[in-house]
Formats: sequence, C-alpha cells, structure tokens
Amino acid sequence: MATKADRVKARLPRGFVDRTPDDLRAAEKMMAEIRKVYELYGFESVETPLIEYTDALGKFLPDQDRPNEGVFSFQDDDEQWLSLRYDLTAPLARYVAENYESIPKPYRSYRAGWVFRNEKPGPGRFRQFMQFDADTVGAPNVSADAEMCMMMADVMEALGIQRGDYVIRVNNRKVLDGVLEAIGLGGDENAGRRLTVLRAIDKLDKFGVEGVRELLGKGRKDESGDFTKGANLDEAAIKQVLDFTAAGAATGSATIANLEKVVTGNDKGAEGVAELGTIEALCSAAGYDGRVKIDPSVVRGLEYYTGPVFEAELLAEIPNEDGQIVRFGSVGGGGRYDGLVSRFRSEPVPATGISIGVSRLMTALKNLGKLDMSDNIGPVVVMVMDRDTESLGRYQKMVSDLRQAGIRAEMYLGGSGMKPQMKYADRRGAPCVIIQGSQERDLGEVQIKDLIEGARLSAEIEDNITWRESRPAQITAKESDIIAEVRKILDAQAQDRVNAAKAS
Amino acid sequence: MATKADRVKARLPRGFVDRTPDDLRAAEKMMAEIRKVYELYGFESVETPLIEYTDALGKFLPDQDRPNEGVFSFQDDDEQWLSLRYDLTAPLARYVAENYESIPKPYRSYRAGWVFRNEKPGPGRFRQFMQFDADTVGAPNVSADAEMCMMMADVMEALGIQRGDYVIRVNNRKVLDGVLEAIGLGGDENAGRRLTVLRAIDKLDKFGVEGVRELLGKGRKDESGDFTKGANLDEAAIKQVLDFTAAGAATGSATIANLEKVVTGNDKGAEGVAELGTIEALCSAAGYDGRVKIDPSVVRGLEYYTGPVFEAELLAEIPNEDGQIVRFGSVGGGGRYDGLVSRFRSEPVPATGISIGVSRLMTALKNLGKLDMSDNIGPVVVMVMDRDTESLGRYQKMVSDLRQAGIRAEMYLGGSGMKPQMKYADRRGAPCVIIQGSQERDLGEVQIKDLIEGARLSAEIEDNITWRESRPAQITAKESDIIAEVRKILDAQAQDRVNAAKAS
Repeated sequence: MATKADRVKARLPRGFVDRTPDDLRAAEKMMAEIRKVYELYGFESVETPLIEYTDALGKFLPDQDRPNEGVFSFQDDDEQWLSLRYDLTAPLARYVAENYESIPKPYRSYRAGWVFRNEKPGPGRFRQFMQFDADTVGAPNVSADAEMCMMMADVMEALGIQRGDYVIRVNNRKVLDGVLEAIGLGGDENAGRRLTVLRAIDKLDKFGVEGVRELLGKGRKDESGDFTKGANLDEAAIKQVLDFTAAGAATGSATIANLEKVVTGNDKGAEGVAELGTIEALCSAAGYDGRVKIDPSVVRGLEYYTGPVFEAELLAEIPNEDGQIVRFGSVGGGGRYDGLVSRFRSEPVPATGISIGVSRLMTALKNLGKLDMSDNIGPVVVMVMDRDTESLGRYQKMVSDLRQAGIRAEMYLGGSGMKPQMKYADRRGAPCVIIQGSQERDLGEVQIKDLIEGARLSAEIEDNITWRESRPAQITAKESDIIAEVRKILDAQAQDRVNAAKAS
Repeated sequence: MATKADRVKARLPRGFVDRTPDDLRAAEKMMAEIRKVYELYGFESVETPLIEYTDALGKFLPDQDRPNEGVFSFQDDDEQWLSLRYDLTAPLARYVAENYESIPKPYRSYRAGWVFRNEKPGPGRFRQFMQFDADTVGAPNVSADAEMCMMMADVMEALGIQRGDYVIRVNNRKVLDGVLEAIGLGGDENAGRRLTVLRAIDKLDKFGVEGVRELLGKGRKDESGDFTKGANLDEAAIKQVLDFTAAGAATGSATIANLEKVVTGNDKGAEGVAELGTIEALCSAAGYDGRVKIDPSVVRGLEYYTGPVFEAELLAEIPNEDGQIVRFGSVGGGGRYDGLVSRFRSEPVPATGISIGVSRLMTALKNLGKLDMSDNIGPVVVMVMDRDTESLGRYQKMVSDLRQAGIRAEMYLGGSGMKPQMKYADRRGAPCVIIQGSQERDLGEVQIKDLIEGARLSAEIEDNITWRESRPAQITAKESDIIAEVRKILDAQAQDRVNAAKAS
C-alpha cells in the first residue's frame, strides 16, 4: 500500500463521469431501441476509430474561442496531428471518401460512439458523451431529409415518448442564407459574419429574443460580466432576421406562405422554401403531420450544414438540475452537409444525417419515468462457513452447478463471519443464500434462505388478496436438490413481482 | 467540392481501422455471450471514461522503450497531464479507490471498452482495441483467482470453442519471485532486472527457449539487426530460470511436485506453490480439471501482477496473416494485482481480474468458422419511378406502412434510372423490390419482384427434393395488400434458408 507521501489521489478530470450498472442497463436498452428503428429504415452499421488525423476532421465546431478550438489533439511520432473525434459526422465523411468506390450508393449507415469536446464542462455538459447517428450519403433530394425527420419521430416513440410530448422542427440553411444575402451579407467575404448571425439565432432558446437582438447588434454582456461581441447589424437588418425566425405559424402551409414573403426576389431563399414545402408534403403523406414541423427559429450550431436542418425537441416539462420545471428541449438533430465529403473528393457528394444525444436523452427519460430497470436480479450467494480447501471445493461445486443450470450464482469471496456475508448478499440483491456448515455437510444437506421473502415478512406487509400465502423464509434441502429448490424460490419471487406490479 | 490544392486526403492514422457491419454484428454477438457468462457468475457492469489523469493510470506497460511510454497523453488547460487509458484495470483501480465506501465488498464488476496503446502497429496489432474485463476487488483468497480461471473456460465454451481446443494456463508470480530471490535478484534494488527476466520469459512463445536464453544472458539480436539488451544472468542462474519455466508436467499434481522442488527453502516461493495447489483443487472440485492447467511458463507482461497469473490460449491451429498454420495462442488473461488499488489508499486492497481481447478473439472465431452472420436480411426497396412530390409521397407512405408493420424497408434515394435502382437493391441484399409506375398507380396496384427467387431461378439451381416448388419471381398486387404479399415472400425466403441449411 501507498505511503502518505507517494499516494495518488483517486479522481477524474472535470467533465468525465463513471457509469453505474443502472445507467448502463438503461443506455443499453435505449440504444437497442434506437438501433431497431435505424435498422427498420434500412440503415446498416459502420464504425470508425476514436482517433483521426486532425485535418481529416476539419474544424466545424461552434464557440471555438479557446486555443485548442474545442478538440483534444496530440502529435503522432511522425509529427502529424491527431485528434479525438468531436462528432460522428466528420469521421463518416472521411470513411465514405476513403471507401467511395466499394460502398453501395446511396450509402445509408448508422453508428453509436463516444465523442469528445475539450470545452468548459458544466451541469449536464460533459467532455465525453455518446452520440447515435444515422446518415444517407449520395442522396441529393430532400426525400432523404424528410426521411431523417420521420425517423427521429419514430425513435422518440420507440423510446416511449408520447405523441404530443415531442416535435421534430425543420428549417433550411438556404432560406437563412437568402435572408442574409438580402441584408447584404452574401459572398465569401462575409462568411465569418454569417456564422456569427447564425450562432446568435441558435441562442434563441437560451437568451430569448432580446438576448439574440443584442447578439445581432453590438453584443451582449452575460450575468458574469463576460461580453460576447455581436454581428454589428443595423436596426433594419436585425428586424429582418428576427422576422424570419418568427415566421413560424400554426400550420405548415401558413409557415411556408410566411417564408415565401420573407425571401421574395431571392433565388436561394426561394429554393430553400420550396424544399421545406416538399419535406412538409412527404411527411404529411406518410402520416407525420404535426410531429414534423417547419420552424424558422432552428439553425443548429455546426458550420458544415448546407440545406435542411432538424432538431428533435422534448416538449414535456421536466425538473432541471436546479429543480426548476422547464421544457427539456433538444435531444438530437442534424441536417444536410453537402460539402463535407467533397472536401476529400473532386466531385460533389450530397449527404444528410441525424445525431441523437444518448446521454442527454437518457436524463430526459429518467426524469419522465420511462426507464424501468426493476428487472435486474442479483446472484444467489453460496456462503462460506468453513475455509479448508475441501469445504471450499464443495461450495465451489454448488456454485458451478447453479451456473450450469443458468442460475446467476457466486461463492462469497470476502473475509470471514456470518454477518458481513449476509450484509453482502443483501447489498447485491441476492434472491437467496445457500448455507452449509459442518453439521449440514455431514447430512448432505444445505439451508436455503429466501432473502426477498425474509424481507417481506419482516416488513409485515398488509394482507392483499393478490398476494399469495407466505412461504417459509428458510428451508432445509438435500444437496442434490439445490437447483430445483432455488428454481422454486426464483419462480415464486417472479410471481410476487408480477402480482406487485398488478396491485400498484 | 474541394479544388485540387486544398483537397484533404481521406486516410486513417496507422494502427486504426474502420469496422464493417459484419464485424460489428459478430463483435456484438460475441460480447453478448461474454456478458452472459460474467452476469451468470454474479458480476455487475460498471464503466469508466476513456480519459484519466496520467498519474492515476500509472505506468505498468511492457516494452516502454518509446519516449511517451506507450500511452497517448496530452495536457489539460490547467497543465495537468491526461492520458487515454491503456487497459481497463488501472481505471477500475481508480474507480474502486474513489468509491470505496459506497460499493459492496468484495466488489465484482465487468466492463467492455476501447483501450489505446501508442505503439508501433503491425499485423493484428492495433493502437485502438477492445477489451472485456471482469474483476473481483477485496477478495484476498485464491478462490477468487480459481473462479477467474473457470470463468475464462466458460467464456471459451460459450463462444463455441470446443473443450480440448483451448486451455487456461495458470502460474504464480510469487513462485517466480522465489526463483529470482534464489538466484540473488531479491530486494528493491533488483526490481528493474527482475522485470527484464520476467519479460524475457514472456517471450517464450515468440522466440523459443534459445531466444529467451539470450535475453536472460547478454542479449538478443533480431532478424532486422536490432539488439535487445539482456538480463545479464550467469549460466547457473539462466539454467535455474529455464528449469522453472519447464517444470510443467502432464498432471497438475506432478507439476506442483516439480515446483515444490524448484522453490525448496524459499518461503515466498513455497507460498506461491501452495496457492497453485488450492487453485488446482478448487477447479477440480468444480469439474474444470484439464481445462485449467498449472503452467510455469506463463508470466504476463504487465508489471502490476503480484500473485496468480492466467492466460487463455487457443490450441486450434489456424492460418496466420502469412497463411502459415500456427497455434493461435493467447486470447486473454489476467492475474492478481494486490498493489494497484492500494496506490490510492492507506490500506491493502487485494484484487484479481481477467481481460478478454475481443478483437483478437474475433479473428480467431472467424478463422474457426464460428461466426455465422448469415441471418442478416436487407431492406425491402420501394423504387422511385416518378419524381413529382405526389408520387414520392405515395412511395413514402408504402415505406412507412411497411416499417410500421415491422418490415425493414426504404425508398430509393439516389439518382434516376431503373438499372442503378436494381443494382442498389442487389447490393443491399434486398429480399424484394416494390415498383409502381403511372399505369400501376392508376389501377391502385404495385409490382413486387422477389430478388432472391429471381437470383435462384436465374442461377438454375438443380432440383432438390428438400426444395419447394419455385414461386413466381414477380407478382402484381393491390396497393392495400403490399404488407401481406411482402410477408409471404419473406416467409418463403426464410423457409428456403432453413431448407438450404438442412441440405448443406
């Protein structure tokens, strides 16, 4: 063991967390459901490594104020820069470009994986988190975008989120670009200012219309006194941008009509509105009206989007970290990124995709009570009463036989004493323990103690007609009957859980 | 798209690979089987992040000749060093130390995850690979080590590896330490040389007895001319070490008897041999004799082991990367590491664990023909004959209805033309395609083309009594009957697969 001087402190860097069994089970169930939907839509899996060449990933992150621009990077032996991926889209673009000749086109694929952001962590904001993406590459038409929206809606419902408790919002960067052209921000020379406007709009949720008005103008000072420089638009331009974001109406066709007015005379804007019209029509034809909604206030933070952008939003009002009841907000989104694969190639490669924020969605489902993890059953614990090798061998055989019969079981491996062993079995949620001291061993018998029944009896639960007669909390059994007797106890406990679920 | 000058090359850094759908399905099935065994043994899941403080991970890797010592590291904003984990054991030790008061003890947990080695990559040697570990912390007795060995044996069989095609080899670092004390390498001042001896023995598989003899003596020059410095033992000491590694015999009790002779008069060595005797006895009691075998040539490369060490070895002879038939060798292993958690704490914390090399094991299973991935079924493809929004909406509804009925389906999203659509459906392994041109649309009908039957008919497979009557390769159906008709085709194809499996 460590002396005080050279002892290392056991701690994690900020923004990283360990995951408990309950979290892992929940995430696994959730991801299995998402995967089912993606598969149903005809997507197939593909996975890329967590490390890529920095130049292959490119730099498309929002809020790149920090020196390392939000990405964990390090140099390889040959001095080339490597980075941990910050999303799953940039690596997919690299993969598609590298394997362009051998993949079916359009290429429809999905993948889940960890991504990393070297950002200031905060509540619910981590430096390592899980995304679950689906992308269609080589599909120029907005049918592919419409499909993404419908698939996000299906994912929400597969996870148990009721219709009406979520909405998939859709906008189009082309419409936004049209508005920006109209206020004189067209052309390559204004790319930086366009991005500033876009990121200002992206803060509508967070800062409201007044905050965004400041960000579109001179700038905004936050509560901590930090000042964010604005886009420096004049009053008329600010009004035009804000009018655009507020062009949403009760019905899709009314929103489209509003937008047509906003972009009058601008070709790119008109093209974008027409695309939104097609998305609206396709979603309606397939029965998704109301669930997929045109909303001009959606922009998404990533720089690489070129057409339709989507956001899956939970409407349910859920307590946040501070206990306030708030609308939960975005749990995923995506959009069309026609330029990302073409960075590697001499031809245009249209693409669109979505990304589900697994960790964030899990928090939401937990708060909504949609994550039932009660079906986990602890191991049967064979207790160690004597520690000579022969006795241990006998306990070991019991455990081994139980496992071969498919029953989760273990021999107690800690220090001696009856009390810590019972405490351990309790902590692990053991359904029962098996006890064999020297007396029982001589008779070829064991004691089996039903811990759940024991707990129930000691809690003196009131009579309930759906509750069966109480069974003995401890029985004596022949060593050869252990498996059969343990099975009886497990079956009875399973029945109790069914009855309890019915009664509640 | 990119101009030639600013085009980025799509490539991966050395030692990193993409994973295809077949690989992913295989890995998933495999990992589900491993997880089942770990759960059956009473272990519960826990996961740690991929990034840790460098000092919390420690430095225990073999072959640390390179400046960054095998680990990918980078500095955080506050100048503290972070590293990507190089195994799953060091992070678990940190986790246990950090959460010591709140976890049940003994603490039995498992986890799968990516680990990273900043090493020179080679064939089958990657810089990112997957491990699947199980550990018991707080169990001082070798019962816990015996359990690890049995569990590795059960994992092999759960993966379809026959009894006799694998063996779990066990040794004990204490016995090795006894031998090293006997040749004058005891004490802290000889820690470095002990490590050199240990790593020389670890190369027995790779270089044979003569190569190891060189590494124990002056050193060894490899084929490329690179020279590795040796441990500089004298002839007598080298003989003693090699005698020890060759002390294995046909039966466990004979090996134990040999080892008792080797360590005569050395307390630590005798303690180690006694522990091996207990492991042997417990495994025999549970019916694992022959599968778990005492073998003094096993040492394992990691520095942190303090007691029993294990290695799971495949005996099957499999073609290697160069096409040579060789014994596949190690697919996992582990050992007792009583000092790793204590680095963080003021008390001793005994621990033992195993690690399965998922990527390596998958290669083995692939070569053994144990990875059947034939149950993957492609999506039904609804073809796009007309591209007006109304027709698209109608195709979209068909796809949506199929999905709601649980049938994997997609609308073709690529460019126009019948030929690329049929080619695409073929590439994706579509069971059938659905076609509706303007004529069919007017009649409220569709054509459904059975692609598998079509392929079968065109290949003119010979008559076979287990084969049913051929069905039509293309049918006309009412639009309202699509789901029922597609189901019929899917069922018939499933039946064909069953028949084909029976016939083969």
